[in-house]
Amino acid sequence: MTHFSAGELSDKSRVEAFSDGVFAIALTLLVLEIHVPRLAAPVTCGALLLALAQLWPSLLAMAASFFVVLSMWYTHHDLMHWVRGVDKCFLFANGFLLLIVSFVPFPTAVLSEYLNTPARAGAVALYCGTFFFVAVAHLLLLRSIIANRRLLHTDVPAERVATVQRAYLFGPLAYLLLLTLSFRRPWFALILTFAMWILWLALDYGSRARHPRTNPG
Amino acid sequence: MTHFSAGELSDKSRVEAFSDGVFAIALTLLVLEIHVPRLAAPVTCGALLLALAQLWPSLLAMAASFFVVLSMWYTHHDLMHWVRGVDKCFLFANGFLLLIVSFVPFPTAVLSEYLNTPARAGAVALYCGTFFFVAVAHLLLLRSIIANRRLLHTDVPAERVATVQRAYLFGPLAYLLLLTLSFRRPWFALILTFAMWILWLALDYGSRARHPRTNPG
Amino acid sequence: MTHFSAGELSDKSRVEAFSDGVFAIALTLLVLEIHVPRLAAPVTCGALLLALAQLWPSLLAMAASFFVVLSMWYTHHDLMHWVRGVDKCFLFANGFLLLIVSFVPFPTAVLSEYLNTPARAGAVALYCGTFFFVAVAHLLLLRSIIANRRLLHTDVPAERVATVQRAYLFGPLAYLLLLTLSFRRPWFALILTFAMWILWLALDYGSRARHPRTNPG
Amino acid sequence: MTHFSAGELSDKSRVEAFSDGVFAIALTLLVLEIHVPRLAAPVTCGALLLALAQLWPSLLAMAASFFVVLSMWYTHHDLMHWVRGVDKCFLFANGFLLLIVSFVPFPTAVLSEYLNTPARAGAVALYCGTFFFVAVAHLLLLRSIIANRRLLHTDVPAERVATVQRAYLFGPLAYLLLLTLSFRRPWFALILTFAMWILWLALDYGSRARHPRTNPG
Repeated sequence: MTHFSAGELSDKSRVEAFSDGVFAIALTLLVLEIHVPRLAAPVTCGALLLALAQLWPSLLAMAASFFVVLSMWYTHHDLMHWVRGVDKCFLFANGFLLLIVSFVPFPTAVLSEYLNTPARAGAVALYCGTFFFVAVAHLLLLRSIIANRRLLHTDVPAERVATVQRAYLFGPLAYLLLLTLSFRRPWFALILTFAMWILWLALDYGSRARHPRTNPG
Repeated sequence: MTHFSAGELSDKSRVEAFSDGVFAIALTLLVLEIHVPRLAAPVTCGALLLALAQLWPSLLAMAASFFVVLSMWYTHHDLMHWVRGVDKCFLFANGFLLLIVSFVPFPTAVLSEYLNTPARAGAVALYCGTFFFVAVAHLLLLRSIIANRRLLHTDVPAERVATVQRAYLFGPLAYLLLLTLSFRRPWFALILTFAMWILWLALDYGSRARHPRTNPG
Repeated sequence: MTHFSAGELSDKSRVEAFSDGVFAIALTLLVLEIHVPRLAAPVTCGALLLALAQLWPSLLAMAASFFVVLSMWYTHHDLMHWVRGVDKCFLFANGFLLLIVSFVPFPTAVLSEYLNTPARAGAVALYCGTFFFVAVAHLLLLRSIIANRRLLHTDVPAERVATVQRAYLFGPLAYLLLLTLSFRRPWFALILTFAMWILWLALDYGSRARHPRTNPG
Repeated sequence: MTHFSAGELSDKSRVEAFSDGVFAIALTLLVLEIHVPRLAAPVTCGALLLALAQLWPSLLAMAASFFVVLSMWYTHHDLMHWVRGVDKCFLFANGFLLLIVSFVPFPTAVLSEYLNTPARAGAVALYCGTFFFVAVAHLLLLRSIIANRRLLHTDVPAERVATVQRAYLFGPLAYLLLLTLSFRRPWFALILTFAMWILWLALDYGSRARHPRTNPG
């Protein structure tokens, strides 16, 4: 309504809308990497069903990337609830996060193409490596909030911020380990990555159940 | 305005905006599956018009998928009017629905490619199978609302919720039947699917005309 | 805020946001139809510049479609200012308009591919034919507003509605003539189409300058 | 809320939302130009990693275009804070800017394809040439605001507008010089372009730090 925010803080609603746009488009572009199978003659129903069934690495990669980008959107959603406004540092950390989010369809496509080939280790390494940068981007975004306390709503409890920061420090380390593992045991690294995401969801869900009113999400 | 919603409920406006984004992008991506015909020499106006006319399965599939995704958006729009806020269960049911919505361009493209070939049964089966999951996702979303009555506005009449729930239970059953039928009589299954969508629209329209003020849509 | 609108009218803000999304995506997808030229060896700077220059039909088609879709968005923007809320008829007329909008990248791509070939007449016919449906969709949307006077804000002057309706009736007729012309004189039909768009913009601008306060746009 | 704005000014919120959509989609489409490498047999992990490493021109071009489009969004964001409403001139200047924004993925793709070939000079020239039009579009948008003072909030200081206008006049000149340079020293022109963007960010950041409360961004 007014074009002056408190101090030099910008208002956050356009940042939210813009980020939502990038998250939504990145999610929806994932399907473009699933290619319609081109059958050699003779074209039969059985051949089509077989070709569709052989797309399972694409479907698995699409579904996994979809849910992890969706989780990132929830996390972003929560973080934006903490802040009263945004400064330039926040905007750049957010821009870096969006760059990585918009990049996710590429490693997903590489994983789809090479998961079922001898080059799977390289594809899994690229996938885990991308999420290493995702974790770093989240850490930078959180740091940009903590660095300028005026960005934070006053009723966000300090211990909640500290808990989240500890959780975010763990992310880059975990992905580095998974990246190293992926060269030796690609399947195991990939399954561990998926397991970690499911575990994080469960832990996050549990922590919210215990602190229903201190959770600003 | 405040970053605390009632109890642990999150506010619904960003969920609406995000879902709208995914619906809008999925709709618009459908056109990417209609490929510009590449003519062999000699390139003539007649050859181009003939090639364009042969795209009718793509155009039919695009238009059908467009209107069904649009109907899903209307339904989503209505459901969101019922809720006061969202919880984690709702967010995951909604995420699952969005995954299927963003997947719709793929079966549409397969239907475009194979509707006019002997492999049509497989393409129709994939198409009906996808909408089976759409129906399941709608049911899960409705269940997530009913499971936590605090999500519902108090003035949504209980009998309206019960009616909608019965209608939603019918969906997965109908698509399972159509899926089985599609292997034997693919054309018939596809026409029946389209007829069912038109019937649903008409029934929905009728029910609204009868209960203008109890309809929160 | 409340989930009951006046009578059975739905609130219009999500319809606006959703339509904006489809318009914005259709605009941005136009660039995907401009393909990076693949040069045969030897790859030289001169060969690249020549290949880029030969993309002029793509650039022309993209720019023309961009500005006409943008004009449609302005028109939509204006129409939405007239209405207080939306009903089911409006939603379906709007859905039909969005279907055509999301289809525009396809005739644009066909025009890019065949404008500089002997098949140009077919490409221009498809382009004008698409805008015939655009004009019909606008007419249907306006009819859906007039059919249910309760949709209109009471302060929209009746003579303004009548003027717009006359202008909208002219659209389908003009495109039908251009479509017939495009088979005999494709270049002339295309230039006439562009000239008509520029004329409409100028007339619209003039009418606003004369009635600054009766213009709800 | 009301459908009449002050005088003939339209309200700016839908223009913001629409522009945000185009910016977000243009950003996200950049990744579509990074193609999954297709390996010749034998498919090995080493061959995949090598092929991924050879994508560095695509990654560099994507990241550079991402950050410059993001900067353009911040600039747009700031400009929109200055205005109270929009007129037809503003809408067309804005439409021209969005056309160029949605075009950016194309020169980015050409740069990705030809940066590492002898045709690099043409690709860099196209890239700098596109940003020449970006700079012109920004200048037109600023002129459209200055031409109709009623668009501006009364508390935007005149000296700030003058400073920004001087900065915007510099843009087209700088890109013209870079365009000429790119034919002789393509690498140098590209590095200079990136250096200029980083310098602009730093200067902008500094100017904000000095004038925290006169900055409406």
